Amino acid sequence: MIAVAQFGAGRIGQIHARNVAAGGEARIKYIIDVNRPAAEGLAAAVGAQVTDADSALADAEIGAVVIATSTDTHADLIEAAARAGKSIFCEKPIDLDLARTKACLKAVAKAAVPLLIGFNRRFDPSFAALKESLDTGRIGKLENLSIISRDPAPPPAGYVARSGGLFRDMMIHDFDMCRWLLGAEPVRVYARGSVLVDPAIGKAGDIDSAVVVLETAAGVLCQIVNSRRATFGYDQRIEAFGEKGMLLAGNREPRSLHLWDGNGMTGEKPYYSFLERYAEAYQAEMAHFFAFVAGREKSLRVTAHDGLRALEVAEAANQSLKSGQAVEL
Amino acid sequence: MIAVAQFGAGRIGQIHARNVAAGGEARIKYIIDVNRPAAEGLAAAVGAQVTDADSALADAEIGAVVIATSTDTHADLIEAAARAGKSIFCEKPIDLDLARTKACLKAVAKAAVPLLIGFNRRFDPSFAALKESLDTGRIGKLENLSIISRDPAPPPAGYVARSGGLFRDMMIHDFDMCRWLLGAEPVRVYARGSVLVDPAIGKAGDIDSAVVVLETAAGVLCQIVNSRRATFGYDQRIEAFGEKGMLLAGNREPRSLHLWDGNGMTGEKPYYSFLERYAEAYQAEMAHFFAFVAGREKSLRVTAHDGLRALEVAEAANQSLKSGQAVEL
Amino acid sequence: MIAVAQFGAGRIGQIHARNVAAGGEARIKYIIDVNRPAAEGLAAAVGAQVTDADSALADAEIGAVVIATSTDTHADLIEAAARAGKSIFCEKPIDLDLARTKACLKAVAKAAVPLLIGFNRRFDPSFAALKESLDTGRIGKLENLSIISRDPAPPPAGYVARSGGLFRDMMIHDFDMCRWLLGAEPVRVYARGSVLVDPAIGKAGDIDSAVVVLETAAGVLCQIVNSRRATFGYDQRIEAFGEKGMLLAGNREPRSLHLWDGNGMTGEKPYYSFLERYAEAYQAEMAHFFAFVAGREKSLRVTAHDGLRALEVAEAANQSLKSGQAVEL
Amino acid sequence: MIAVAQFGAGRIGQIHARNVAAGGEARIKYIIDVNRPAAEGLAAAVGAQVTDADSALADAEIGAVVIATSTDTHADLIEAAARAGKSIFCEKPIDLDLARTKACLKAVAKAAVPLLIGFNRRFDPSFAALKESLDTGRIGKLENLSIISRDPAPPPAGYVARSGGLFRDMMIHDFDMCRWLLGAEPVRVYARGSVLVDPAIGKAGDIDSAVVVLETAAGVLCQIVNSRRATFGYDQRIEAFGEKGMLLAGNREPRSLHLWDGNGMTGEKPYYSFLERYAEAYQAEMAHFFAFVAGREKSLRVTAHDGLRALEVAEAANQSLKSGQAVEL
Repeated sequence: MIAVAQFGAGRIGQIHARNVAAGGEARIKYIIDVNRPAAEGLAAAVGAQVTDADSALADAEIGAVVIATSTDTHADLIEAAARAGKSIFCEKPIDLDLARTKACLKAVAKAAVPLLIGFNRRFDPSFAALKESLDTGRIGKLENLSIISRDPAPPPAGYVARSGGLFRDMMIHDFDMCRWLLGAEPVRVYARGSVLVDPAIGKAGDIDSAVVVLETAAGVLCQIVNSRRATFGYDQRIEAFGEKGMLLAGNREPRSLHLWDGNGMTGEKPYYSFLERYAEAYQAEMAHFFAFVAGREKSLRVTAHDGLRALEVAEAANQSLKSGQAVEL
Repeated sequence: MIAVAQFGAGRIGQIHARNVAAGGEARIKYIIDVNRPAAEGLAAAVGAQVTDADSALADAEIGAVVIATSTDTHADLIEAAARAGKSIFCEKPIDLDLARTKACLKAVAKAAVPLLIGFNRRFDPSFAALKESLDTGRIGKLENLSIISRDPAPPPAGYVARSGGLFRDMMIHDFDMCRWLLGAEPVRVYARGSVLVDPAIGKAGDIDSAVVVLETAAGVLCQIVNSRRATFGYDQRIEAFGEKGMLLAGNREPRSLHLWDGNGMTGEKPYYSFLERYAEAYQAEMAHFFAFVAGREKSLRVTAHDGLRALEVAEAANQSLKSGQAVEL
Repeated sequence: MIAVAQFGAGRIGQIHARNVAAGGEARIKYIIDVNRPAAEGLAAAVGAQVTDADSALADAEIGAVVIATSTDTHADLIEAAARAGKSIFCEKPIDLDLARTKACLKAVAKAAVPLLIGFNRRFDPSFAALKESLDTGRIGKLENLSIISRDPAPPPAGYVARSGGLFRDMMIHDFDMCRWLLGAEPVRVYARGSVLVDPAIGKAGDIDSAVVVLETAAGVLCQIVNSRRATFGYDQRIEAFGEKGMLLAGNREPRSLHLWDGNGMTGEKPYYSFLERYAEAYQAEMAHFFAFVAGREKSLRVTAHDGLRALEVAEAANQSLKSGQAVEL
Repeated sequence: MIAVAQFGAGRIGQIHARNVAAGGEARIKYIIDVNRPAAEGLAAAVGAQVTDADSALADAEIGAVVIATSTDTHADLIEAAARAGKSIFCEKPIDLDLARTKACLKAVAKAAVPLLIGFNRRFDPSFAALKESLDTGRIGKLENLSIISRDPAPPPAGYVARSGGLFRDMMIHDFDMCRWLLGAEPVRVYARGSVLVDPAIGKAGDIDSAVVVLETAAGVLCQIVNSRRATFGYDQRIEAFGEKGMLLAGNREPRSLHLWDGNGMTGEKPYYSFLERYAEAYQAEMAHFFAFVAGREKSLRVTAHDGLRALEVAEAANQSLKSGQAVEL
């Protein structure tokens, strides 16, 4: 059993801790969180103890850390864990600042410790099956990729102000999916955005609706659509079109019930939150991390480089949004 | 061009006449109907003239007749047309009485004229594709057949009283589909029925909701469900289950629009009436008839024998309903 | 925390034990199984100890038992647990014999302990939503119920011989769903069955394909279709038709991926096994049981009486199958 | 009955002529085509006579003309028909050249005759229902529009060379749908295109795969995807996302058959050609034109201005494609 120190006992931290516990390959030894009651509650639930960062990292028994704290602490914790020689899982993003991200990754490289960035969507069973179908040639050469990603409801304006903006906070997931599914780097980005959902988001200096077009050197085009609000729930769909056909990974509904009546046929809404939609993805992500740490997986599905590249695309999107023109990468 | 005399200028008669006209293989020369204005209206629309039955059948140019009058006139008109040596299309049923049906078919056999009974569902593109998939072995040996058939709204009680009852009037279509798809004769029938939709139907001595189980000698089971009312429209579905898989022919919707909102996903209602749902079937049925008359088709897809057998199954269902027990055929 | 003794460490026992452990309301204290290594393996996984039945039931700390052993031991274990005053969860069926079942339930009634029978499908989110929609009048008065239930692959012939036959082993689940959804007792049963899937099942004296028609006093009809094999996976669907519309609970697929190519549109197969299809149902069932034991639920969703009635319907179906005629209940 | 002169007896001409004939409001009096046998064949089929353009336009009985000839003749024929005071239906586009288009529309305006441009997709029942749902507020304020439009197979390279390019030949339909559904003019266009399907198209100076992003002054974004080839058939889908929900008009399949087997669930391919997919749209378009000519419709659903504006957007897309940057309109 791998002993784990987990940083962060918030909403996503609770998901990760329970998945680690249920996975059977590792056990949470320490929970670290500035919110002491939250740390204690989660520690009790998973049989861990509460401690501070230094003590946890100083414990030689600790083989891996799970970082699920607020974004501004990620880079420091990654560096500290890397110096301590721990295997690292960290929620996206590494940092909102590109230079800080690069410095952090340099430290990780120097320490030569594994780092898995939490781009959870790569572990979603439907998206993973789409990727596998692409790789096995089910639709031949990929020609167009469409990613639709809408949150059920906008975040509070306070969150928006600290978020780094829609491209770095929300669409970064889609940039990662895009790179992963294209199997090639985007060389050109055109980004447009509007404030259509909530004026408070505009006042906070951000957008809430966006369309981005990415392009590979081979001329494969990918369009990404984001919105901060969808009344029907969490809208997460991908279409990959190729020379032999098209793959569609649609939304997931919690139930299979349909009603036919005078209004037509009514089906269920998709899952409302990312916690429900990606519950299986979070499990698979953590299982993958510990399988790698335990030596059963040869390579990590998401690398530190992926974390950096997604941020670079987001930066380019921000530039394009400002200039109104396409940006070469 | 085959010259045609059509009997009946009502709702289904108008469908048939226009399909004959548009088909390009035949032309309606005469329309015959006791309702003179209806006959004249339809004759004008398709470039035909109004006449009476005897004159029409005496015209040697007439090669085929289309019979779309009320049920009680079918057998007499079939016999008269047979004596006159015409090719015959007749709406189902031949007659509500088994003995009368047999006598009529004897006359047809004696005259050796072709007779196509209007079991239109065999010509529906989806059901025909299901049949073809069965015949080409897509699901291997057939093991179970499920036929769901519901009208959008109950007929007037006056119609019910003259209809011959649900089994001879409505489920007779499903008995025909069952025989056609099973590719074998049912040897046992169990029928149950209730009055759940409209008490007036019960007062008229009929049922409005029914389930019938049919069985072949090989033990293949087929269940048929009927209702005289479905709020969402015309419910016409077939499921064929076999050793290698299952074929489902679902309802057809007039549009492909879906709405996703706080109520879930709402799709369109199926077609409301048989005229819309089976518009293509009526065209294909008429095209098939004239292709046969013109010598391009070797055999009729529905025979007089099929008309008789469906009625015999309906009779057996009536017996079973009365006795409460299964009836051997 | 309620202390639990679990009997049975086989496939379904493992599911139940893990759900108890994850539920947070109870803890498995003892595992009892004649297969000692299985008992030890499961005990280790959930932090329990291995013991024998008498010791477990003699422990006053034990508040509840979970019975997941082979069918022939259910009645004895229920009686022993009842005498010891424990709350009881038991997998279906209580016993294959009606008299033995009644005697057992008498003992339970005398001891006045709660007994939840594991008709897991009542806890499936889609079927539970269908039931709730019925109860809240979404389709008005129920007029027809259709239950389709097919296993992915036939059981070994050895299992069949001990199973009590298709009606008591497999369709008993559907009889329970039928009673639950109809909200009324069936008063008449007509059952037909065939051996179409595997001749070995016929040699073992059983059938592998069946259609049963049930009927309430009010004339509501319910048809149930079973097969021991479906190439595409576990086929579990329910259609409820009523005066205002129709509710359909369809199969569940593990992924939302669709491929469009020259073959048409290809979607995923449904879940293959009952363990996957009903994973959420097993969780909800166990959560319901312990919520009742803990006093938070006022009544059990499945009662001992439900277990008895389903068996009585199965017996009537067996009679009907033998006689070839409908049987009054 | 309105007497009609139809120019063009090719594939789309045959569709229009038969729809005019079946519509019951007008009759084709003349067919004009440089391909004399084609003209004669179609004339015979619809009871018309063959003549030349001057004679047809000189006939005072002719109330309307239908222009279904090759694109390079449209503007001249429109002008001639306008001078003769006829009501005009013309296939899109008016002309590939913007200046020529404007001159032609000036002539139409001067003659004050009605001109309906054949943007047939506005008459498709599913897209028309989507538009109506937008207009009646089903999804509130529109925020994003996605148009997917793929041909089943690429045209011959010879056609491509004369076509005016993908934006003026193919995506012009989508530009029109975009303007129609947005209910606002695009003010900014970003267009990217590639040769991924057929190198011969590249050699002919065109692209075969494209993504275009359009934007209104209010910040509503619309992305359009085109490909000249889709192995599964004619891919014609629209998604409209708004503050209250989302409307999806999906592809249409000719049959409702699904197969479930070891490969999953396989459904039908969509219609393969525009003639099948838009059969109802062509009927509705012609019915609308003659209803307007007959005075029963107050306004034309597509105006000459719409024809001009779609071409202007296509021109801007061509500029953007060349410059690599967004273009203001």
